Amino acid sequence: MERIVAGLEKKNRLLIPKERRIVAYHELGHAIVAMALPGQDPVHKVSIIPRGIGALGYTIQRPTEDRFLMTQDELQNRMAVLLGGRAAEYIFFHHLSTGAADDLVKATDTARSMVLRYGMDKKLGHVAYERERQPMFVTPGSQGWHAREFSDETERLMDHAVRDLVGHAFDRAIEILNAHRPVHEKTAQLLLQKETLEEEDIKALRAQIVPADATEAMPEKPAAAASAGHA
Amino acid sequence: MERIVAGLEKKNRLLIPKERRIVAYHELGHAIVAMALPGQDPVHKVSIIPRGIGALGYTIQRPTEDRFLMTQDELQNRMAVLLGGRAAEYIFFHHLSTGAADDLVKATDTARSMVLRYGMDKKLGHVAYERERQPMFVTPGSQGWHAREFSDETERLMDHAVRDLVGHAFDRAIEILNAHRPVHEKTAQLLLQKETLEEEDIKALRAQIVPADATEAMPEKPAAAASAGHA
Amino acid sequence: MERIVAGLEKKNRLLIPKERRIVAYHELGHAIVAMALPGQDPVHKVSIIPRGIGALGYTIQRPTEDRFLMTQDELQNRMAVLLGGRAAEYIFFHHLSTGAADDLVKATDTARSMVLRYGMDKKLGHVAYERERQPMFVTPGSQGWHAREFSDETERLMDHAVRDLVGHAFDRAIEILNAHRPVHEKTAQLLLQKETLEEEDIKALRAQIVPADATEAMPEKPAAAASAGHA
Amino acid sequence: MERIVAGLEKKNRLLIPKERRIVAYHELGHAIVAMALPGQDPVHKVSIIPRGIGALGYTIQRPTEDRFLMTQDELQNRMAVLLGGRAAEYIFFHHLSTGAADDLVKATDTARSMVLRYGMDKKLGHVAYERERQPMFVTPGSQGWHAREFSDETERLMDHAVRDLVGHAFDRAIEILNAHRPVHEKTAQLLLQKETLEEEDIKALRAQIVPADATEAMPEKPAAAASAGHA
Amino acid sequence: MERIVAGLEKKNRLLIPKERRIVAYHELGHAIVAMALPGQDPVHKVSIIPRGIGALGYTIQRPTEDRFLMTQDELQNRMAVLLGGRAAEYIFFHHLSTGAADDLVKATDTARSMVLRYGMDKKLGHVAYERERQPMFVTPGSQGWHAREFSDETERLMDHAVRDLVGHAFDRAIEILNAHRPVHEKTAQLLLQKETLEEEDIKALRAQIVPADATEAMPEKPAAAASAGHA
Amino acid sequence: MERIVAGLEKKNRLLIPKERRIVAYHELGHAIVAMALPGQDPVHKVSIIPRGIGALGYTIQRPTEDRFLMTQDELQNRMAVLLGGRAAEYIFFHHLSTGAADDLVKATDTARSMVLRYGMDKKLGHVAYERERQPMFVTPGSQGWHAREFSDETERLMDHAVRDLVGHAFDRAIEILNAHRPVHEKTAQLLLQKETLEEEDIKALRAQIVPADATEAMPEKPAAAASAGHA
Repeated sequence: MERIVAGLEKKNRLLIPKERRIVAYHELGHAIVAMALPGQDPVHKVSIIPRGIGALGYTIQRPTEDRFLMTQDELQNRMAVLLGGRAAEYIFFHHLSTGAADDLVKATDTARSMVLRYGMDKKLGHVAYERERQPMFVTPGSQGWHAREFSDETERLMDHAVRDLVGHAFDRAIEILNAHRPVHEKTAQLLLQKETLEEEDIKALRAQIVPADATEAMPEKPAAAASAGHA
Repeated sequence: MERIVAGLEKKNRLLIPKERRIVAYHELGHAIVAMALPGQDPVHKVSIIPRGIGALGYTIQRPTEDRFLMTQDELQNRMAVLLGGRAAEYIFFHHLSTGAADDLVKATDTARSMVLRYGMDKKLGHVAYERERQPMFVTPGSQGWHAREFSDETERLMDHAVRDLVGHAFDRAIEILNAHRPVHEKTAQLLLQKETLEEEDIKALRAQIVPADATEAMPEKPAAAASAGHA
Repeated sequence: MERIVAGLEKKNRLLIPKERRIVAYHELGHAIVAMALPGQDPVHKVSIIPRGIGALGYTIQRPTEDRFLMTQDELQNRMAVLLGGRAAEYIFFHHLSTGAADDLVKATDTARSMVLRYGMDKKLGHVAYERERQPMFVTPGSQGWHAREFSDETERLMDHAVRDLVGHAFDRAIEILNAHRPVHEKTAQLLLQKETLEEEDIKALRAQIVPADATEAMPEKPAAAASAGHA
Repeated sequence: MERIVAGLEKKNRLLIPKERRIVAYHELGHAIVAMALPGQDPVHKVSIIPRGIGALGYTIQRPTEDRFLMTQDELQNRMAVLLGGRAAEYIFFHHLSTGAADDLVKATDTARSMVLRYGMDKKLGHVAYERERQPMFVTPGSQGWHAREFSDETERLMDHAVRDLVGHAFDRAIEILNAHRPVHEKTAQLLLQKETLEEEDIKALRAQIVPADATEAMPEKPAAAASAGHA
Repeated sequence: MERIVAGLEKKNRLLIPKERRIVAYHELGHAIVAMALPGQDPVHKVSIIPRGIGALGYTIQRPTEDRFLMTQDELQNRMAVLLGGRAAEYIFFHHLSTGAADDLVKATDTARSMVLRYGMDKKLGHVAYERERQPMFVTPGSQGWHAREFSDETERLMDHAVRDLVGHAFDRAIEILNAHRPVHEKTAQLLLQKETLEEEDIKALRAQIVPADATEAMPEKPAAAASAGHA
Repeated sequence: MERIVAGLEKKNRLLIPKERRIVAYHELGHAIVAMALPGQDPVHKVSIIPRGIGALGYTIQRPTEDRFLMTQDELQNRMAVLLGGRAAEYIFFHHLSTGAADDLVKATDTARSMVLRYGMDKKLGHVAYERERQPMFVTPGSQGWHAREFSDETERLMDHAVRDLVGHAFDRAIEILNAHRPVHEKTAQLLLQKETLEEEDIKALRAQIVPADATEAMPEKPAAAASAGHA
């Protein structure tokens, strides 16, 4: 089960050179952030050959093992990977573009789940504001319940928490990519030339990435195990 | 009618060692809090063998007698049991994970019922803001009524009350587990080895648990029976 | 047409002794408050034999005459009767329990009707915020209208008015039961022994109840008939 | 086309003497206020014989001519007539009862139409916030639009305006009935005796009613025709 | 394609003399304001013969040419024409009546379109808050979008803007009619006598109307074309 | 795939001379702003011959290459082109008219997508508040989610952001058109005479347009690539 981290939106086939360059830097943005952060599935392939119905390029991560639990840190790092493409565009082209729309959706969904389902925001507490979005839960009767069973104040706290989580992840991605600009640029040239980076090139790239110290991004490490947490 | 207190989410079968350890500590978290608090059904089994469709492990409590009434204290203690798994992860692994999502849903539901159906919050009074969630009540016509028959101010008070109840329960669980760290760690080793703890092991564990003094958690014990309560 | 005032929730048959005692005090709480307040239908039977699908015990009131009008005082007294069971649990067992859930629903419905349909709250005026909840009114088109045809400020005033009415009724019940503790305890012993109190026992109980002076609970008695009321 | 102004709620047939007295004073309250205010259809009959499905008594007004326009003053006077029954209960029995529920609905509907459809509130201006409640307007698509096409601030202004209009009408009714207490009491005795007052009795009653000076209740009479009104 | 500007509500046929007089002044109110303001379709007929299902009288305007664009001034003047009937009732009868309900609906719709669809309110900007109300837009899916795709603050600004536009239009109508009282009264006598005014009478009336200076009502005329407008 | 930028609303065929002039200036407003701003598809045709069902005139832009990504600057410039017609009416006729309604819808949609889907507003962050409006997303279940999954505070921020973006675009259009008044007027005369401008005329017009310096309108160009952006 390989996971395609991201992919710029695509409606047709042939990209103009400028867009092709943007896609190359964007995809490598995902790849480099994924390599720099712990707990992320290893990158196997980076490509700027349009694929499927929506992607101008893609980056494939393949898990080394089945996982059933995700910690708060791993989810935050995953958001940074998702925003790595947009961060790359921002650093190398000084713009925000429509190409990251799907990445924003995925990062937002992750942040919302952290806040609404996994009780990972201090102010909102260990409360489940939403049940799992499984079809069996979405009966007409229960539908209204999910949408509005909290006050506007709580909804505002959720919005702030989601914005903070996503903003923090974007900052992390910017920070990591700024630390790897030369290798990013060099590898982008290679990607534009070869169109797809496979095992060997990926391995070479990974060798040049300095792992980010993930610990300083951890918001919740207790000073002492005896402390009572964030309730 | 045995009750399965909790169970970490599961999608597949084989856990990696680190996750297996987390599950062991998590399940024992439920068990130890249940043993330390009065009014909770006795624990009969603790297992880290995945079971059914959603659980990575499970803890079984079996009531000694049929019960028809639950007091405020018993409901609060039940929430502490439900959050015992998350509290264990927090103490021993310094993280919050997605594994406690279902526990949060159950604890939140309990807290909401206390506040909305059982009139157990001082500020919100002896008022029923919600009827029993029985199918016969969920007719299309009455549906909208349930969802919104109070002001945003009241909804805000509910959110605060629910967050306080759940947060308090988590603190209680942390407190109890901190007081039993050595036995928790020792029994986790045993559980990882045997995969399931049955009668004898459970009995040995229970013998080492110091009952928590539940009274200090009681928010509503009247100073004198003559006082008029929280209205 | 006898009216069953209340009844603790029941799912099965056999109660443990502690719950049986709670039910006895709870039912007598209804009965004693009903006897102490004017305008309430006379009590005919009090029983702790589970009955029907939802009741752990029951108290039967039978009207002496058909009534077509209810005054504000009578409705307030009726709420005190409904909360008499919970008040008894609070006085004799120092707890709030889930057993009063149905009583809370009925008391809340009464308070809401006073405020929304009968114009009995000073701040909300002689305004009908809700029509009678008859099936013929609940057509899909009119449904939305009922739910939201007032501002959040008005909804907040309603919530405060309902909480005050219910809280006041609970205080009245506490006050009445505190004044009759010895007879309550003595009769509870009898009820636990006989399981049902019929005519003779009820008559003996009634003889010992001092009627509460209902007038001080009347919020609306005009100083002079010439005053213009609460508009 | 005779119009039945009001009628206390009824579920069955035989009233107890106290309720019968209340009904008599209530119905005469409607009749006397209708006689004292200009622009109201003449009263033709007052009865305490229960009638139809919902009324404990009734008062019949019959228009002398077809009318197609109603002015603000006439609508305000009509609300006072509608609340005349409740005002009578308040003056003679010092209570508010459930018997006026239907009168409140009608008075509230009148006030809401004045505010939402006829542009008769200064703060809310000459704006139509609601179209005529004709079936042809209540298509599913347009439904949502009607219910919410204004802000919460506007909804709050509407609530205040409706409460003021209804409260003012109640005060007017109290004022008029206080000025006619002796004839009200005397005629109530007659009504209790005869059960129905027809032409002769009505005529005699009318002769004793001093018309209220309606002008002081007019909120909108322009100081000079040249002024620009309430926009 | 003649346009019937307004028409008082009608349910039946025969009006009493007082209502007939009100209708005459009301209809002439529409006609005189239409004649006094530029950009309004010429009046062709004024009648107090009830017509169709809803009108007690009517005024017919017939455009001299097909128009595809309406400017802000023309829309504001059209609202003044719509409120001309109510303004006439206010000036000559010192009342507000139910007869103008349909005029209020049309004036409100015009004001809402100016604010929500045509970007003609300074504070709300050149933003389309609503699409054209064409059937093809009202698919169930898009319905919810229209109703609520802005905040309560924006909805409040809309309410204020609509109230201001309608209030301003009413003031304009009052101002114009006050300046033409003698001719209004004289022509009303004629209309009551003849029941319908056709070409000759209309022409005579028009000759006596002094055109209002529309320019001072223009809220948006830029001081210099170089200024950047209201964004 | 040619793109018709705008078109004044039309219901019929024959325009009066004044409206014809407005349409000519309006369409040239679109064309001139499109020519002055970078990243906009080249203009191929400008016409005042009514076309299709809704347009009084039209301006055709034809892309020189397929594009898959749009940057923030390009979207802002596109909004200025869309509002170029209204800006021309404002400069040359000193009015706002109903003719720009469809342009406002398109500009508003663009601004909303920038804010809600592309994360291009600083205060609202890199968050996706809305998924792509594809039919497959508009299932009944997901519908409610889209409409309300943020607080009123967030909705207010969105409204402000959209108003600012649209207002800024209008100011840009005004600025550009003010700088090209003589050529605008001269070309309008030509357009009124020929009714349609094709290749040669367009080329001549383009030669006279001074490109606007787009950079000063860029709100997001980072001072240094190392800065962390707007999170």
